[in-house]
Amino acid sequence: MPDSTEQVALRRCAHAMADAARAAILPLFRTALVSDNKDLAGFDPVTEADRGAERAMRDVLARLRPDDAILGEEYGETGGTSGMQWVLDPIDGTRAFISGTPTWGVLISVRNAGGPLFGLIDQPYVGERFEGGFGLSEMTGPRGTVPLAVSGVARLDEATILTTFPEVGTEAEGEGFRRVARRCQLARYGMDCYAYALLAAGHVDLVVEAGLSAYDVQAPIAVIEAAGGRVTDWQGRPAHEGGRVLAAATEDLHAQALDILSAV
Amino acid sequence: MPDSTEQVALRRCAHAMADAARAAILPLFRTALVSDNKDLAGFDPVTEADRGAERAMRDVLARLRPDDAILGEEYGETGGTSGMQWVLDPIDGTRAFISGTPTWGVLISVRNAGGPLFGLIDQPYVGERFEGGFGLSEMTGPRGTVPLAVSGVARLDEATILTTFPEVGTEAEGEGFRRVARRCQLARYGMDCYAYALLAAGHVDLVVEAGLSAYDVQAPIAVIEAAGGRVTDWQGRPAHEGGRVLAAATEDLHAQALDILSAV
Repeated sequence: MPDSTEQVALRRCAHAMADAARAAILPLFRTALVSDNKDLAGFDPVTEADRGAERAMRDVLARLRPDDAILGEEYGETGGTSGMQWVLDPIDGTRAFISGTPTWGVLISVRNAGGPLFGLIDQPYVGERFEGGFGLSEMTGPRGTVPLAVSGVARLDEATILTTFPEVGTEAEGEGFRRVARRCQLARYGMDCYAYALLAAGHVDLVVEAGLSAYDVQAPIAVIEAAGGRVTDWQGRPAHEGGRVLAAATEDLHAQALDILSAV
Repeated sequence: MPDSTEQVALRRCAHAMADAARAAILPLFRTALVSDNKDLAGFDPVTEADRGAERAMRDVLARLRPDDAILGEEYGETGGTSGMQWVLDPIDGTRAFISGTPTWGVLISVRNAGGPLFGLIDQPYVGERFEGGFGLSEMTGPRGTVPLAVSGVARLDEATILTTFPEVGTEAEGEGFRRVARRCQLARYGMDCYAYALLAAGHVDLVVEAGLSAYDVQAPIAVIEAAGGRVTDWQGRPAHEGGRVLAAATEDLHAQALDILSAV
């Protein structure tokens, strides 16, 4: 774990990066967009906003933390010598972004060899920033700064579960999700990375997704764990490299969902 | 159609009601809520916020427009003598509300015997107000006031389609939605009344839902029609009493979706 001076520097850098990303993205939100099609078989729009925001964040790192490594969704890996790696998703939820829904976010996290140390989920349009790590867990938004804490919900039949796409992933993954969701009080869809922020804030209790990348999950993992929640893959192993993700407010809820999902 | 003085008075009243609803609801958003269960067979939470907001809006009407009739989701019908009826949904998207997602909204519209004349969709947390009618079509939000206009998308394979619940309604209604959605470029879920606002603003192109009530649709219909879109039921008839709703950015898109949905 970095010492307290280093922790302050890392957190300041994360905020400077989030500010830079906001400035790059917001002028392009809800305007006509140049959207390429990265994956010709599917629909994975990459916008100028996405690339501009990652460049803006990399500029901040070049200035403040030139020795740290970077893994970014748009521009890949850049080596470093400090033992720290920044993991960046400039716009998580590009489909939300092009649909005008304020559920996309900027994901910024920093890790060492042990995994994510600090993470930040920023929603520039609503003006909300969720962060967790280095002993801190809070959200700054339209109503000021409030602490983050997961709910105490311990039973599936009292839980609200979120995922982004109803199909979730493969046929088997979708069926696994539905087997958990049918036992929950409420299932909601379409929230992208905002789902993880809502879990950290105690408003929802479970997020189950599949097919994620490292840059999709590392910031959410740091934010949720700092708020008292539990995030693993569907086998109960660390999820910070992505794949199938199960995020839960409590250990009990995590165990009940894992019992179902581990059979997939 | 009311004369221009009356139009100004009606619009002012609608804004005063939306302001009153914001003040009643926001202190309860993302706090511990008292939520009853109106429909014991399903999950239809009714919060103090819902009731408090409708009472606040009714108080404004009692002061400014005592001769108008009212149809409200929470407190039902109140008679009037002016020929005008206000149709109110204090919180459209109560499940969104209890999940903390800023996709719920306050729906306010005013109608005469001919149907909705003016409508307003308010998102208090994000601070966005979409309105349409009396020759006006605009949204006031974090970036000021901008005109609303639907997209020009005329083909399903270029369209983004939204619905709130993946199951939509009955099995047949769900299958009807999926037959349209499979022909669209992108399908997204979970936006509640915010979906209609995004359609009026040109960010999405189709909204297809079922099982709606009059108070769920009248404000969206007014906002979307003022922005140049088309809203009917799944048979091409007026949808302002609720039921199955098809909202489209263009006549061409409406016709293509109707061709599929009218067989349900």
